[in-house]
Amino acid sequence: MTAGPSLFAPVIIVAACALVDSDGRVLVARRPAGKPMAGLWEFPGGKLQEAETPERCLIRELGEELGIATDESCLAPLTFASHRYDGFHLLMPLYVCRKWRNEVRSRENQALRWLHPVHLFALPMPEADRPLIPFLVEWL
Amino acid sequence: MTAGPSLFAPVIIVAACALVDSDGRVLVARRPAGKPMAGLWEFPGGKLQEAETPERCLIRELGEELGIATDESCLAPLTFASHRYDGFHLLMPLYVCRKWRNEVRSRENQALRWLHPVHLFALPMPEADRPLIPFLVEWL
Repeated sequence: MTAGPSLFAPVIIVAACALVDSDGRVLVARRPAGKPMAGLWEFPGGKLQEAETPERCLIRELGEELGIATDESCLAPLTFASHRYDGFHLLMPLYVCRKWRNEVRSRENQALRWLHPVHLFALPMPEADRPLIPFLVEWL
Repeated sequence: MTAGPSLFAPVIIVAACALVDSDGRVLVARRPAGKPMAGLWEFPGGKLQEAETPERCLIRELGEELGIATDESCLAPLTFASHRYDGFHLLMPLYVCRKWRNEVRSRENQALRWLHPVHLFALPMPEADRPLIPFLVEWL
């Protein structure tokens, strides 16, 4: 007997981060044309590389995507998404970060917006990201 | 140049679940003698098997450990732990479950307790689990 596709799938870990500014606004980035789910807004972050911890992954991705530097001690676990996409299962821990060095800038031509969490509900986001919003509204 | 041990480690995913009864109490189980961290109290759950989603893992573990049955739709993401242990990095998504079939019973000779979340602070728990408690106190 083999397991059905609804039970088993390779689990992909994507670390994501809600950068929070001094006004309590959160940064979202728009996925550029040509990528899967282009045009949707998401939290910065990316896929864990081999044997990379979520924190190290985020520090790397925040540097690559936004030109900022932060530390493990500035990344606080908030919540996570667990979502079945076609062919894989996404596990996405969401961290909160309030402290970083350098100014946030778009290094990959992605559009950026700072929004109060309650305004995220109106934003087109990937399906997996939507359940994260109430946690940001509640905790920030 | 090789990466130092503080940067990279195999990531182990352990799915955990806060079972919540009608009084708002949460189930914790004591790790039996002979296991690592014996005597400490933790949330039910366990390590993901190959290509197993966190939800399927929990459904399996809750059956094996406690003799109960539940469904993916009854497992709600709450928060997660990310903790460096010796030789591996633990990523532990914590779900909340309020609905299951059968009565909870200890199937592996582990001691069980139902506690209001605020009483978890006084309980000896693995280091990784402690940051989860404020989320349970706040959300339940």
